[in-house]
Amino acid sequence: MTDPQELDRGDPLAEYRGRFVGAETPLVYFDGNSLGRPLEVTGTHIGEFVQQEWGGRLIRGWDERWFDLPLTVGDRLGRLVLGAGPGQTAVGDSTTVLLYKMIRAGVAARPGRSEIVLDRDNFPTDRYVAQGIAAELGMVVRWIDVDPSAGVTADHLAAVVGPQTALVVLSHVAYRSAWRADAPALTAIAHDAGAVVLWDLSHSAGSVPVELDQWDVDLAVGCTYKYLNGGPGSPAFLYVAERHLAELTQPIQGWMGAVDPFLMGPTYTPAEGVRRFLSGTPPILGMLALGDMLDLLDEVGMAAVRAKSMALTSYTVDLADEHLAPLDVVVASPREPERRGGHVTLNHPRMRDVAAGLWRRDVIPDYRDPDGLRLGLSPLSTSFEEVRRGVLAIRDELSRG
Amino acid sequence: MTDPQELDRGDPLAEYRGRFVGAETPLVYFDGNSLGRPLEVTGTHIGEFVQQEWGGRLIRGWDERWFDLPLTVGDRLGRLVLGAGPGQTAVGDSTTVLLYKMIRAGVAARPGRSEIVLDRDNFPTDRYVAQGIAAELGMVVRWIDVDPSAGVTADHLAAVVGPQTALVVLSHVAYRSAWRADAPALTAIAHDAGAVVLWDLSHSAGSVPVELDQWDVDLAVGCTYKYLNGGPGSPAFLYVAERHLAELTQPIQGWMGAVDPFLMGPTYTPAEGVRRFLSGTPPILGMLALGDMLDLLDEVGMAAVRAKSMALTSYTVDLADEHLAPLDVVVASPREPERRGGHVTLNHPRMRDVAAGLWRRDVIPDYRDPDGLRLGLSPLSTSFEEVRRGVLAIRDELSRG
Repeated sequence: MTDPQELDRGDPLAEYRGRFVGAETPLVYFDGNSLGRPLEVTGTHIGEFVQQEWGGRLIRGWDERWFDLPLTVGDRLGRLVLGAGPGQTAVGDSTTVLLYKMIRAGVAARPGRSEIVLDRDNFPTDRYVAQGIAAELGMVVRWIDVDPSAGVTADHLAAVVGPQTALVVLSHVAYRSAWRADAPALTAIAHDAGAVVLWDLSHSAGSVPVELDQWDVDLAVGCTYKYLNGGPGSPAFLYVAERHLAELTQPIQGWMGAVDPFLMGPTYTPAEGVRRFLSGTPPILGMLALGDMLDLLDEVGMAAVRAKSMALTSYTVDLADEHLAPLDVVVASPREPERRGGHVTLNHPRMRDVAAGLWRRDVIPDYRDPDGLRLGLSPLSTSFEEVRRGVLAIRDELSRG
Repeated sequence: MTDPQELDRGDPLAEYRGRFVGAETPLVYFDGNSLGRPLEVTGTHIGEFVQQEWGGRLIRGWDERWFDLPLTVGDRLGRLVLGAGPGQTAVGDSTTVLLYKMIRAGVAARPGRSEIVLDRDNFPTDRYVAQGIAAELGMVVRWIDVDPSAGVTADHLAAVVGPQTALVVLSHVAYRSAWRADAPALTAIAHDAGAVVLWDLSHSAGSVPVELDQWDVDLAVGCTYKYLNGGPGSPAFLYVAERHLAELTQPIQGWMGAVDPFLMGPTYTPAEGVRRFLSGTPPILGMLALGDMLDLLDEVGMAAVRAKSMALTSYTVDLADEHLAPLDVVVASPREPERRGGHVTLNHPRMRDVAAGLWRRDVIPDYRDPDGLRLGLSPLSTSFEEVRRGVLAIRDELSRG
C-alpha cells in the first residue's frame, strides 16, 4: 500500500487544500459530497459584499450586476463545469424547485405522451417531484429497477422507454452507489424513443466532467452546495439546450422570467432565452461562494479535478480492501474508477452505529439507508493522509463492536 | 414647516439609524421598500457564519441548527412581525415560488370553484403566477379595477366575490400607491363568500403591523428584502393558518417537506405542520440577515416602527405639498397616514427623467410606471433630515426641466 504522505507529495493539486476553511484541523471530512467546505476567500468576499455592494450600492446593485447574475454565473458554470455554451444555464431556486420547472417543461415538450421514466434509486426529491407532477397531470411514472450497488445501464433504459415516454429523469452520479451513468449513451436511447432527457448533475457537477452540449442533453439541473462549495442551501442551476429555448416554458410565471420585469405589464410574456426559466428575485448572497469556487475551478481545470478524484476514490477502495474487507465491509460502489463519481459507499450491517461513533471522534462521513457509509471525497479539499486516517477510524469503530 | 433636525431630535428611534451600513454617508436612500440597508452586525455575522458554522460544523450544522431554521426563523417572524402564533410560518424560496405554492394550495382548498380574484394593480408577479395557475387548471381570473391612487376597498371586493370564488389574492400595502388595505374587513368579505384569502405582505411586513391570526387570514406570503432587510434576493416567507395545516398541500413535493427527509423512502408523504410547504434544501446563508433584523425589531417593537413610519410619510406629504405641489406634483398615495404603508408615491409626467437625475446626485428613489416617483422610507434607517434633502432635490430636478 502506498504511503499517504507520498501520495500527497505527488499530488499536483495538494496546494489547493489550504485554501479551504478548516483544512488545517484534525477533522476528517468525508461529506464534501453533501456540503463542501467554504473557501477562505468566501468569508472575506461575503463580508465585503454586505458592506460595499449591498450596503454601498443598495438598489443600484440590481442594474449594475445582480439582475444578470443568474445568467452570468450560469454561463461561467456552463463553460467551466458543464460543457455548456453560453445562454443555456441559469442559477436560482432550490434543486427541487428547478426539478419541478424542468420536469413540467420536459413533459410539456412531448404532448400526448403519458409516461415519466425514473429509476427507483434516483434521489428522493427527484422521485417525489416526478410523482407529484405525474399525479397532477394524469401521467404515469415508469420505474427502472436497478442494482443498488450500480445504476442505470443502457439495457435498463432501452427496456422501459417507448412511444409513451415523454421524459426520462436520471442522475449522472447515483447518490448512494456513486455509479456514473453513461450519459451520452442513455441520452441517445431516450432520444431514439422520441423522449426528452433531464439529467440531475447534483452528485457530479464539480467532480466529474460533464459535456451537456456534446452529449446532446435536453435539460439538466444540479445543486451547488456539494462539489461546487456554494454553502448550505445555495441556489441550484438549470440547463436548457438552445434548441428548446424558444419552445419550452415553465409554470411558475414570475416577474424575473418575464420579457421586461420592470414594465410590470398586465400579462406575463416569457423572456427570450434561458431567463424565462427564472421566477422570483434571484438569491444574490447565495451565489457568491459559488463564484469563488468557479474561480478556483477555472485555475485548476476539471480534468485535473477528475484525475485527483479518481485517485482519491481508488485509494479509498484499496484501503477498504486492505483494512475493512476482513471485517466484512463490502464496497458498494463500482470498482472501476471511471465508473464512479467522487464518493465511495461502504456497506456493513452496523454502519449506522459506526457513523455515529465516527462523528464522535471527528471523522465525518454520512450514513445512507440501508447499511451504507458514504465517503465523499471532495477533490480539492481532501488529502490522501486524511483518507487513510478516516478509513483506519472506520476499522477501529467496527472492531469495537 | 417643522425643522427636520428638531424632528430627528424628537425621534425616539433616531439612534437606530446608526446601526445600518452607510447611514453616515450623504446618500439619500428612498428605496428601503425595494431593498433595505444591511445592519452593520450582518456583515460580521455572515463572515463568522462562513468561518465557524459552515466551515467549522460543516454537515453537522444541519442537525444542530439549519434543518429547523426555516421554521424557527418563521416562528420569530410570526411572533414579532406577523401576529402569527407558532407553527404557521416558514421561510424559504422566493416570493414568486411561494405564491405559486400558496395559490395552488388555496384553490385546491375550494374544489369545484372556478375563480381566482385579484386586483389589476396587484404586484406583477402575483398577477402572473395567478394567471399561469388559472390557465393550467382551467380557472378564470376575475379582476378588480381599482383607483391607482388608492387600492381595493370593501365595496370593490364585495362586488366581485361569489359562489365561484375559490381564492382572493390581495396585497396588504399596494406597491405603487402605498394604499393599506383593510385586511380584516376584506378577509371577512371573502370568507362570507366561502373563499380562501391569500395576503401578500411584501410591502407591509416590517413597517405596518400585521395580525394574521386575529384577522382570521388563511394564507400569506411576503418578501424579506424590503423592510426586513434580508439582503438582495433573500428568501420569502409563507403563513398557513393552523386550521388549514392538516388539509392543505402544495405541488412542489420535495424531500425537505416530506415527513422524514432522511428516510428517503419510495413515496412522498407530506410532513405534519407547516414543514410540508417546504420543498428543497433551505437557503441558510440567506436567512442570517433577516435574523439580525428580527433581533432589532424585537428590541424596538412594531408599534414604535409604525409610529415612526407614519411620521416619516406624513412629513414627506407635507414637504411635497409645500415644495412640489407648486410644480404640479400630485401625491398619489392616500393622504391619511393610517391608510398608507411605508412609502409615498409622487406623480408628475416627468418623473422618469427626474428619477434618473436624482440617481446621478445620490438621491435614490425608484420610478414606477406611469409617472410615479416612489419614496420608500424605511422607518429604522431613514431620518427626517434625509427626507427633507431628498424632497428638495426632487424640487431642484423638476425646476431644471
